[in-house]
Formats: sequence, C-alpha cells, structure tokens
Amino acid sequence: MTAPDLLSLKESKVDVLIVGAGPAGYMAALWLARLGVSTRFIDKRSTRIFTGQADGLQPRVLEVFESFGFADRALKEVAVGFEACFYEPDEKGRIRRVDKHPEGVPGMSRFNGSVCHQGRIETWLSDAIAEFSGGAIRVERALLPEALDINDGTDAEHPVRVVLRKLPDDNAEPEQYGHKVQNGLYRQFDGDQNQQNGVNGATEDLEVVRAKYVLGCDGAHSWVRQQLGIEHKGETTDFVWGVLDIVPVTDLPDIRKRCAIHSQNDGTVMVIPRENGLVRLYIQLREVDHHEAAGDNTLPNGGAKKRVDRSKISADHILATAKKIFYPYSLESAETHWFTAYQIGQRVATAFHKDNRVFIAGDACHTHSPKAGQGMNVSMMDTFNLAWKVAYVVKGLADPSILATYETERKAVAEDLIAFDQKLSRLYSSKPGEISMEEFRSVFDKGAAFTTGCTVNYDASLLVDKPADKLRDEPYCSPLATKLAIGMRFPDSRLIMQCDARPWFLNQQLPSTGQFRLLVFVGDYAQNPALGEQMNGVGEFLARPENDLSEAVLQKMLVHASPQDKAEWDDFPLVFRPRDKRGVMNYWLIFADTPSLHDAKAGDAYETYGIRKDVGAAVLLRPDGYVAKVTEPTVDRIKDMFGFLARFLVGLKPSA
Amino acid sequence: MTAPDLLSLKESKVDVLIVGAGPAGYMAALWLARLGVSTRFIDKRSTRIFTGQADGLQPRVLEVFESFGFADRALKEVAVGFEACFYEPDEKGRIRRVDKHPEGVPGMSRFNGSVCHQGRIETWLSDAIAEFSGGAIRVERALLPEALDINDGTDAEHPVRVVLRKLPDDNAEPEQYGHKVQNGLYRQFDGDQNQQNGVNGATEDLEVVRAKYVLGCDGAHSWVRQQLGIEHKGETTDFVWGVLDIVPVTDLPDIRKRCAIHSQNDGTVMVIPRENGLVRLYIQLREVDHHEAAGDNTLPNGGAKKRVDRSKISADHILATAKKIFYPYSLESAETHWFTAYQIGQRVATAFHKDNRVFIAGDACHTHSPKAGQGMNVSMMDTFNLAWKVAYVVKGLADPSILATYETERKAVAEDLIAFDQKLSRLYSSKPGEISMEEFRSVFDKGAAFTTGCTVNYDASLLVDKPADKLRDEPYCSPLATKLAIGMRFPDSRLIMQCDARPWFLNQQLPSTGQFRLLVFVGDYAQNPALGEQMNGVGEFLARPENDLSEAVLQKMLVHASPQDKAEWDDFPLVFRPRDKRGVMNYWLIFADTPSLHDAKAGDAYETYGIRKDVGAAVLLRPDGYVAKVTEPTVDRIKDMFGFLARFLVGLKPSA
Repeated sequence: MTAPDLLSLKESKVDVLIVGAGPAGYMAALWLARLGVSTRFIDKRSTRIFTGQADGLQPRVLEVFESFGFADRALKEVAVGFEACFYEPDEKGRIRRVDKHPEGVPGMSRFNGSVCHQGRIETWLSDAIAEFSGGAIRVERALLPEALDINDGTDAEHPVRVVLRKLPDDNAEPEQYGHKVQNGLYRQFDGDQNQQNGVNGATEDLEVVRAKYVLGCDGAHSWVRQQLGIEHKGETTDFVWGVLDIVPVTDLPDIRKRCAIHSQNDGTVMVIPRENGLVRLYIQLREVDHHEAAGDNTLPNGGAKKRVDRSKISADHILATAKKIFYPYSLESAETHWFTAYQIGQRVATAFHKDNRVFIAGDACHTHSPKAGQGMNVSMMDTFNLAWKVAYVVKGLADPSILATYETERKAVAEDLIAFDQKLSRLYSSKPGEISMEEFRSVFDKGAAFTTGCTVNYDASLLVDKPADKLRDEPYCSPLATKLAIGMRFPDSRLIMQCDARPWFLNQQLPSTGQFRLLVFVGDYAQNPALGEQMNGVGEFLARPENDLSEAVLQKMLVHASPQDKAEWDDFPLVFRPRDKRGVMNYWLIFADTPSLHDAKAGDAYETYGIRKDVGAAVLLRPDGYVAKVTEPTVDRIKDMFGFLARFLVGLKPSA
Repeated sequence: MTAPDLLSLKESKVDVLIVGAGPAGYMAALWLARLGVSTRFIDKRSTRIFTGQADGLQPRVLEVFESFGFADRALKEVAVGFEACFYEPDEKGRIRRVDKHPEGVPGMSRFNGSVCHQGRIETWLSDAIAEFSGGAIRVERALLPEALDINDGTDAEHPVRVVLRKLPDDNAEPEQYGHKVQNGLYRQFDGDQNQQNGVNGATEDLEVVRAKYVLGCDGAHSWVRQQLGIEHKGETTDFVWGVLDIVPVTDLPDIRKRCAIHSQNDGTVMVIPRENGLVRLYIQLREVDHHEAAGDNTLPNGGAKKRVDRSKISADHILATAKKIFYPYSLESAETHWFTAYQIGQRVATAFHKDNRVFIAGDACHTHSPKAGQGMNVSMMDTFNLAWKVAYVVKGLADPSILATYETERKAVAEDLIAFDQKLSRLYSSKPGEISMEEFRSVFDKGAAFTTGCTVNYDASLLVDKPADKLRDEPYCSPLATKLAIGMRFPDSRLIMQCDARPWFLNQQLPSTGQFRLLVFVGDYAQNPALGEQMNGVGEFLARPENDLSEAVLQKMLVHASPQDKAEWDDFPLVFRPRDKRGVMNYWLIFADTPSLHDAKAGDAYETYGIRKDVGAAVLLRPDGYVAKVTEPTVDRIKDMFGFLARFLVGLKPSA
C-alpha cells in the first residue's frame, strides 16, 4: 500500500494492539485490562470457538487464574487428572492395565492438571477482561491486519503502524468441526484461506492503528511473525494422530482416568477424561495417505516431509482404529463432539520480537504435539510473562530494557517444551517391542513435573537476581530460603492473617495486581529481641520518603513466626499497617505462620520456604509471582533490594 | 371486597405464591426454582435493599449455599469470624482485652460464621433463582396483597385466593437509611405505612391469583400472618440498642475480630467486622426517651412496655456512646454506611400455617435481637425446610401429610432461638458487676455451637425415624453410625471418587437437587467376603423393578472402605453405575474412603460417621440434607427403609 493511500484512511492511536484472540491473546488482554493499559484486541474470525481445540490446563495456569480471581469458575467445570493408568498387551495381544501412577506431582500445587474445552476457558478470560476493563477491552471481530511497519518516523511515541481491514462476517466464519477446522492448535497444516486469497480491497473497510507495542498472538501461521521475517524452525514428522471428543460407551474400567494404551499391532491411544462426561482420545493412525507438501509458506524447511491428506480421515475412521486398540474392551460413541487429525511437527521461532516493539507469543512462537497438554498453557504463560512488562514500560514505571527478558525467558521454555515433546512423541508413536514399556513409564513420570508448568526456572537477568552460572535445570536457592528457588514461581504455604486469624494460602493474598512484592519474613521476633530490633529497623528504613515507592508498584508485607499469644498488633512497624488519608488502616499486610485457635496445623510457611525462624529472610516477588531476589531481612540487605529495583524501575533513587 | 368486584378482575393460577422478597422468600424461590415448580414471587417494595439490615451468615447457611452452587461467591466477599475477644474494664475503668476464644466451633463445618450485607446475599440468591428457573421466577414489584382466603369452594386444586394490587413505584420506594428504614430486621417497630394508609383503589391495578400454596415471607409485621389470625406472642424489653455500620478509624488492636466490650459505666459494644473494611457496632443505648406504644396491631400483648422514640436517635448519638465505651481506645468514622436503633423484643408466632395451605416463615414467625446474627439465617432455613416439601406435594410425589412437619420442626427451632436470645440479650445488657464476666463468656461459648446452625435436631416424625422419646437437646445416633445423629444435618467428610480418584468433601457431591439419598456404606468388602456378598445382595434388591424409584426422588450411592489397590470398578453392583438409554454409564455414585496416590490422608468418612468398616451402614438423607434413617446395609433392613419411604412417597409399594 502506498503512502498516499494511507493518508486517506481513518487513523487512531493505542498503547497496545493485540492481534489474535486465542489463549495467548486473551491472557495478554487480561493483564493489560487488569493494569489499565489502553488496548485494542482484534481477531480476523467472526465468532468464538465452541468445540474441540486445546483442552489441557496445567496447575500453574490454574494458579494464575486464581490470581485473577476466576479459578473457582474453572474448578466447577473441569475434569481433574489424579491418576494415570498404563495398559499394555498380554501374551495374547489383549490389553490390560499393568500399572497406575499419580498424575502430576502430589503436593506441587493446590491445583492438579485439569481438562476443559478451550471455548469455556476463553469465556472465563473474556468475562474477567470485561470486568477489569469496565467493558473497554473486548475482541473486535472480524479485523484482518494487512500491513505492519515499525518506525516510519512519523510518530516516535507510537512507532508501530498497522493497517486493519474489516472483513464481512460471512467471509470470516470458521468451520469448527473435523478436517476443515481453521483455528487454534490444529491449524498449523492448513493454509490460511482468508489471508492467502485476500478479499476485495475497498478502502472504506481499512483503518490505520498506531501503537506503542504490538503483540502477535495469531497462531501457528502467524501473520505478524511473517511480517517480521522471523523463521519458524524445526520439522514435521511422519507420525499422524487422530483426535476424537466423544461421550463413550465402554467397559474399560479406567475410562475416567488418564490412560496410555499401547496395543500389540494397532497403535496407541491416549485417554483424557473431559468435562460433562466427554473423553478425548488421541489415536495413532498408522495407515493414512501422505502426499507432498505444497506451497505452505509457513513451513520453510518442512518441504521434504510428506504431508498427510487430512481430507481422507473421518471420525468413523479414527474411532475404528481406537476400537481395535481397545480390544478386548468395547468402545462406541454416544455423541461425537469434535474430531481432527494432525501430523506431529515441532518448531520454535528464531526470535520472539522485533526491536522489542512487536512481539510474538503462543503458537506463533512454538508448535508441537498436543499430547502433553502444553500448548494452550505455554501460550498463556508467554503473555503472562510479557504483558506486565509492556504495561510497566507504557506507564513509564520501568525502563524498556526489561522487555528483552521476554525472549530470553520464554524462548528457553519453548525450547525445553519442544525437547520434551520430541521425546514423548517418539515414545507414544512406538510399538511395544520397539521401546521398553518401563522406559515409557519412566519418561512419563519425569515429564510429570514438567507438565505442571510449575518447574519453569528463569535465568539470571535484570529481573532475576542469582548467580549467572546457575542454569535452568538446577534450581538455585539462597541459603536463607533453602526451598525457594530464585527465578521460579513462588510456591504456596498456609498461614493466618494477623488481624483476624483467618487462615489463607499465602498465594490467595498475592493476586495479580501488577505489584512487585517485598515479603519480609521477620522470624520469631517476639521471642528473639534481636529480630524485633531488626524488624523495627527495617520498618523505619521502608518508611523513609526516598524508599516509599508507590503502593501500586511495591507492596510490602510481613510474615512473622511468633506464637499467637505473644504477637500483638501494635508490635508491628507502621509501614506494614499504613493508614490512608482518612486514617483508615490497611489491616491485610501482616501474616502469622502460627497455629490458630481453630487449627493447630495452620502455619507452614517458614518450613515450606526453608526459612529459619531465628534468622528470617526478605523475598522480592515479581508481578507475575516469580521470585526475583532473596536477602537477609536487614536494613543493609533490603537496601540492596532497592538497588536491584533501581536498575529498572523509573525514578527510584535508593539511598547510597 | 365483594364477590362481584372480584369477578371483573384478571385472574391467574400458580402452584405457589411467595409473598415477600426477604431472605425467607428468596430461599423459598430458590428451592422452587431448582425443583421446577410454577411460582410467583411478589414484594410490595419497588427496589431491593442496598445497605444495612441483617448481615450474619452461619456455617449451616453457607453449607446450604454450597449445595446450590454459590458458596464460592460468598467466600470471596464475606468477612469471616475466627476469634472473639473479650474486653472488660480494669480498676481504673479503662477497657482492655481479658480473653480470646475461637469464634464458632472449630471443626464443626468447613465454613465459619461470616458477615456480609444482606443486599449482596439476596443478589447471590437472585442470580441462582434466575439461572435455575431460566429467568421464569423473579421478584415482581411493587405488588401489595390486599385479600386472602382459603377454600372459597370455586377451585379445589388452587384453594388459596389472593388479591394483589400493583402499586405506583414512588409509593413503594423504601427509605434505606437511619430511623426511617421500613424493611427487614428492624422494621418490627414501625407501622407499615403503605398498608396502613392504603392507596387509591383503582380496580385496574388489581388482579386475583389462585394458588395451591401461599408462603408468607413478609417480615415481622406479616400481613399474611394477620390474615390467618395468628398471634405473635412474646414481649418487648426496655433494652435499646443502636446499630452502626462504619469504616472505623481506631487504635483498638482487635477491630478486625469480633469483640464483646463491657465498659464500667457506659454500656456495652459488640464489634462485628464486615466486608470491605466495614465494621458493624451494636451499641447499648442507656439514655434514650421511651414513650407509650400506640396503635401497633402487630404487638398484641406488648402495650404495657414503653417504646423508644427512634426519631431522636442519630448516627452521631450512637457513635458518641460507642466512643465512651471504647475509652481509652480511639474511635472515629471515616464513612457511615447505615445506622438504626432497636428495642429488643422476642416473639414467636403461635402457629406457622393455616390448613397446611398457607404458611408463614422467617420474621413473620419469630423476631428477636439481632446480636447472635441468627435472624436472616433461621429465616432462610425455615423455607429451606418448607419449600422442598411443598414441591414434593405439588408434583404429586409425596402425601400432603409431610407438610405438617414444617411447623413441628421449625417452631422448635424458633423457640430455642428465642430462649437463647433472651439469655444472651440479658447478658449483653448487663453491667460488669451485675453479672459475672466469667458467666458472660461461658454463655457465649455455649452459644457458639447453637449459632453455627449446625446443631438443629429435628424430632421423630414421618420424615425422621428415631425413637419418639429422644428429645432435641440430646442427639440420637444409631449404634451403626455412632457419630451421625438422626434428625440432624449430615456432617461432612473427605473421600475420593472411585472412578477418577479425585478427592471431594462428600457434601460437595450431595447438592440440593430435591433427591432423597440412600448412602450405602458397604464397608471393606474387598477384604471381607461376607460384606461383598451383602453388597451384591443389596445391589440386586435395589435393581428390582418395584424398588426402582425415579432417580429424581432417590439417588443411590455407595461408599466403600477397601484399599485402593483392592477395589476394582467392576466389583460394584450395576445399580450404582447405571447406564442411560444410550449405554452411557453414570460414573459418579461410588466413593472410596481410602488414601489416594496423591494424599495419604484422603479418607475419613467411616471415622467421621462412626461407622465400622467391618459392618457398614445404610443412611437415608432427606432432600435438605438431614439424616432421616440409619440401618444395617442388608437387604432386609433396606427393605425397611423403603417401608419408611412408602409412608409418604406416592406410588411406592415396597416388597413385603
């Protein structure tokens, strides 16, 4: 499009433009809505999705949902995995259960891996976005981006220019069933008809948006990624799998547990119990036609692989294969809700951003097999990592240099994910005999921790203070908090609110508000006068005007370990029980890791984090709940913490 | 109104008419919506309430909210009481904390006594009513009942005729602040202006409703009660209390705990922490003017008492009194949300129904001091007791004789409540010196169990099978389930779902669906062959066509106590894992009281109920969750259970 053309178009400005309303886009919009950032959120499709697609919710994502206040909605609807059963053939080739393992990692999180249809998940996100933004942020459909450039020199404040086209609704209606599905996880092997073929180009349907930042959350075939010239590197395998969402009629006794079923000669089925009596089956399809890939410009290095002809795969075909594998158990479908077929491909984008102005996230950055239930989760966690950083920069609270941590943190996760997926896919696609079934179960167990999403470990950076040589496969803890890994998500613990003795899980009091949090574990100050003096010194230090960061940026909390009958409200420094202009006190920042009159086992925070009650610790959490830094709870060391914050927070001048 | 007048009016029929949209009315509408009963729900006021009023939610009511699916909404908003502090004067007359007790009874319920503004509570109920009824049942405002008669002989199916008048909205707008408040708890000493004065009587504003049943949930001045000629018996005391909802500015260290503060000479304050930083103060007012009661026809025997002149009591006056009592602690108000004053009166209606066709519930049956936080709760529990019985009769599922249990069960509760309130009010209104403060705390502790609402114990009746000489103050348990009192609500326990090993609290799987439930605790059948045979016999018996009660009336569940690695899905009788017409199995009726792979402490059901794992028990629960009958889990004894059900369920012919 030429410059004179553009001049005639209607034009608007926005802080952030999100392209694509899938899981990554919704999570970005949720954070930006929560933090009050001016945002537009567009999608080229005219409707939401109703069936099929991704369905796995890892514990970490449920923790994040809780931090935004809607995990309870999820828990009412999801199916939760607590056990995994392994079926293998006996000497007559009849499958039978040979083992039973816990699903996930007991005790890792208050949540367990859960399953629910993507459409419902997007509804919870969408409702929360509407609530936080007062209705201001919602998906605008059907808007197709047609051009994108950065720094054309006309608007330094809003350097990204995107041209959008309003599509007629009937042109943007997706097929939601079977092999014609165009959206979501399984779109990766389809061309993108709307964008490939173009639509009639009336300029009255065009508009120009000038944005400070653009987030490309537009899926495996990402148009944004293509505009940035970023490669999507990796390969497509020959393995072909069918997916079937059915209400089953079966006598398999473990149909409501996750099952990995290896048959002797007919392939493998994975059983994932779903909400509302549904079950998802992943079924290896051994006998399908492959043909040469043709003209898929999103697979630059995949041309050598043959592509499966998905048009020849029907729900009946997939079910028939599953029935063979189930033998001697019966399997029929009372209702078939959705099906598709996919060929396993594993790719990671070579970069996750351009100029730290335009970012890509989710499937646009990484595609892989859906079997570990990771895709939707990692996509949401991408923008959960990114959007608060963008918000801080947009609001002038942080230096733009923090944006570089998005790629370093999330590219590592994507690479780990692809490596895990390659291993798992190979095992699932192997026959008994080709691999040892013990090996299969061992990989499954090792993967259990990974698939919770709770083991992500960010490297040392501007936002994570730990020795630079500590690699992500070995969690690093300060000796002050020997079970609290720096760079990892803050694990949960139980304690009581000091003011009213109400028991809480600590993370329930750390919602996603955009605040950094300084948790001062002051120890058992009431029985240790030196700790009491130390606590008062820290309180005095934090109250100094030069350290009095806005409450919106840094929330200061105190966790003590003194017995309930020794600790009095007036013991605590006023900075942890501040009053507003009217004199009304904030009572909700002081916690006791101590038994209550109601529950002798109420507190386990110091133990959970490996903090000594006679030493204490100061812990700094990022707005996304990852541990940024751990120090001693002394004035000097908390001064260091402010020095750390001053490296990226704007206007903070820590005392020398 | 004469018969010819009525003939010209528009007329309609309905199964149930609920008069009055307060807590009792909302709970009745909720049950009837859940059970699909044709219902109209009217209120004479034109708007809902927004501030003040009742605020206490007992654990039992939160359990009921959970059974309807919205306890999670409550838990996000309420303030929860975990500790009660007692303040008394020292020798210089300065108050100081002398003791701290747990609030409520630790371990009695998963919920603790909570506090939230009545308007929010009605919103949760209202939303659930809309959802269950698909929008069909909602409050119709402003409709004033003008005439009621039973059995005029014109419609035997719908024997109650009520004439309703549509009020102009501006005539029905309530004052919601201060001493002019017309609605809710504190209305009991006001006349009812709209109804006293009447409105202009245009017949086009009138309609006739013919109902099978009418529920009068219209408050302390109940018009329905007056129509039925039922007395409201009891008396008004001289004690006058003020109520103040404020955001406090104070240095009282326990302001976020419940406090009972007795001052030396200035009276008593009760502190109730509320949602959103609010605190409710109940303040004894010693110096107020009393005058002769005049023309209050709802207080037939209260004429001898002097009435306080509420118009002379302001928020400032109440706060000033509270400040004196707080000395030496400071107290100011940053925001005053509501205030009122009341004179303690205690009354119980002499009957709760007329002809078991028109019922009264809630404040219409019992009024008392609000200090124990019971009024709204007992009102809701009245109609939670009543409405399912009405629904069973309306639907032709049960004999109308069950309706008589409403009065016997709930009048006993009302009488216990008044007795408790009289004792508590006297203590609160006494000076230190007049009573011993130890006595005060002892009554407070004894009342703690009562105020949870979990100790209500219904007498033997058509719906409760226990020896008739067992009185309600001594819980009666079968030797088969030594901790499960018959006639009391079913306590909670932890177990896992057999099919998928998901942990649950058992009550989470017993929602209010209108079903009776037969829980067969089969014991450790896998390690005890005799129990296995017994289980199979019971399964065979329950599957017989003559015992195959509709699933909507009787849900059959099984709880076993065999180790997880010994119990297999196919062990269980098919009646507990039934298939629908399509062959789809119901997987959700079998539970294991056993450790899971995730949690070694998962199961405690047998222990909680005092059931032996080598004997078992069969437990019958009513639709409202009260234990109806306990027997051995044998064919003969379960036959008895069907005999018990046949006394009131229509069309059940148990085998001889």
